Amino acid sequence: MTQAPARPTSVERANGSLLLREIREQPRALERLLENTEAFEEAAARAARQPLVRMVGHGSSDNAASYGVYAFGLLPAWTALRDSISLSVYYGAEVDLGGSTVVALSQSGRTPDVLEYVQRARARGAFTIAITNDPGSALAQASDAVLAIGAGPEESVAATKTYTGQLAALALLAGYAAGRGSEVVDAVRRTAAQLEELLPSVEQHVAELAVALAFVGRMFVIGRGPEFATAREISLKLLETCRVAAEPLTATDLMHGPVAALDGLFPVWTIASDDETLQAVREAAAKARAAGATVIASGTAAHAIEGAAYVVPVPKPPLAVLSPLLSVAPGQLLAWALAQAKGLDPDQPVGLSKITLAL
Amino acid sequence: MTQAPARPTSVERANGSLLLREIREQPRALERLLENTEAFEEAAARAARQPLVRMVGHGSSDNAASYGVYAFGLLPAWTALRDSISLSVYYGAEVDLGGSTVVALSQSGRTPDVLEYVQRARARGAFTIAITNDPGSALAQASDAVLAIGAGPEESVAATKTYTGQLAALALLAGYAAGRGSEVVDAVRRTAAQLEELLPSVEQHVAELAVALAFVGRMFVIGRGPEFATAREISLKLLETCRVAAEPLTATDLMHGPVAALDGLFPVWTIASDDETLQAVREAAAKARAAGATVIASGTAAHAIEGAAYVVPVPKPPLAVLSPLLSVAPGQLLAWALAQAKGLDPDQPVGLSKITLAL
Repeated sequence: MTQAPARPTSVERANGSLLLREIREQPRALERLLENTEAFEEAAARAARQPLVRMVGHGSSDNAASYGVYAFGLLPAWTALRDSISLSVYYGAEVDLGGSTVVALSQSGRTPDVLEYVQRARARGAFTIAITNDPGSALAQASDAVLAIGAGPEESVAATKTYTGQLAALALLAGYAAGRGSEVVDAVRRTAAQLEELLPSVEQHVAELAVALAFVGRMFVIGRGPEFATAREISLKLLETCRVAAEPLTATDLMHGPVAALDGLFPVWTIASDDETLQAVREAAAKARAAGATVIASGTAAHAIEGAAYVVPVPKPPLAVLSPLLSVAPGQLLAWALAQAKGLDPDQPVGLSKITLAL
Repeated sequence: MTQAPARPTSVERANGSLLLREIREQPRALERLLENTEAFEEAAARAARQPLVRMVGHGSSDNAASYGVYAFGLLPAWTALRDSISLSVYYGAEVDLGGSTVVALSQSGRTPDVLEYVQRARARGAFTIAITNDPGSALAQASDAVLAIGAGPEESVAATKTYTGQLAALALLAGYAAGRGSEVVDAVRRTAAQLEELLPSVEQHVAELAVALAFVGRMFVIGRGPEFATAREISLKLLETCRVAAEPLTATDLMHGPVAALDGLFPVWTIASDDETLQAVREAAAKARAAGATVIASGTAAHAIEGAAYVVPVPKPPLAVLSPLLSVAPGQLLAWALAQAKGLDPDQPVGLSKITLAL
């Protein structure tokens, strides 16, 4: 944003929020993840024999899987898909899994249908990897390989440091699969340092944005390529923490229908990356502005979005595919600030618990 | 719904709407699709040699692809995925396509990045199938095989008969792939007859629902398994035609965060099928009601959703996997009725054109 923040964050308020504390912990959590890279190298070597990657998870873990589609596509050029859990667990479809590696994402390692999916897939020949914050969990025990996020206990209901931990874990796995493991390890380390530097300034800036959005009930969040995961994760944070009906879309999705719903009280948040998708994102933002929508621009190319009312840029990471580790931060911090502006408890959304045990 | 409609549809109003005319044409369009089943049989035989199905499309075509995941998963037990267009077209990822069949979905056959995806995929060894309403289109010419929907010209901007045509085409292709082609052909024919019978009664009933929803700005639409496609398509119709911020979710998605956003002015539409997912959908609806949301229930098991304020059931088709051909109809008709209730033109949403040529 271009103006000084109207309401700076007080240290007192910050210390009281689990969500904010865990957002701030992310750089150190990423560094801890890098302490045990052998497990990633080994898992990648075994996955290379069965390189159709099937990812499963719910909520933020499913958003991380959206990132995995691009991490595996761009680094080792493998096909990675967000697999249907219901096809296997509910309908009992007997799909051939001989050439598949399953990557199961669950912070707690206790999500029941993810666990059941893994048990079935392993029995049918898939190589199974658990990416989890609890290496002693049932999911970890049920899997051939365990990649621990190492984020430490996450107490806020809304996931933050375990989400970025999952992203980094997927990037490392994909990096080793591409024979570029040490390059990705080094790049994640440097990106964590960039995040450490970024967070305090974004934390200051979101206060102004929170005031502007205090009466907004609907929003689209636009991202393409690796940043579609960021659009999904920012939308989920705003939904669960701030009760905003935020819907993630690709730039192209927006053009194919939803643009017709926009008006002045229906803002569009665009995550713009300085990569091959930038032109499409710029055009989508222009279309949104033409429909009267307020545009918020973030991402590494936030300044390239013309006419944005709010601009929250993030730095370019050393490896382009790692930009989602940085670009999610403005959304996480806005969720915290906007919840406060609306008088909601950012640490404990109504009706949610940390681990969803229902199927 | 259980009450008599407050405002019956007048013939005059109906005749004026392209959208309504095309919704009504769907049963006959499906019958025309069944006139040329040889092409489906041939394409399925060739696809069987490369049975990893990659589907691409935008808007309603992408929603149809969500159905394809289940049609191929449940009938021949093949893996079908909604592939990333940007990974190939924007980022130039060189994924191995030797074992893949591409199914490109485009009503017009002119969607630029779908065309470019197919050209690249074919050059790299994929068997390519176009499912399109224009067998003379550039997409058809670029593909190894063409499956014509045969829906006739679609003039309304919002797709209806071409969407159900795409569903039927995917079901036929999957049916032939499973060696059950004639069974599926027969079942589609009987489902078309059920749709013919269903439409007039739903057309009457949606008037009441449209009045109830006239001031609603946000909605979740819940569906699981094959009906997730229906949830996506109903959401898109409401977004583009009625400016409702409708977001599709699986029952499990709802539990993992978005349920926290619900209140009395944030209704939840649940599509309930009488199948293995019913219990999860029932639980999600109960959670939505507990959060104060008004619940609308449709689908073959609409009556199984407790406490629903509005119930719009559809009959059970002869083959369970075909239920989305019927269950989308209440959403299509509501989009038409609600647009009218809100004073919008259902045939021509603001800012949209029939063919989206921007990338």
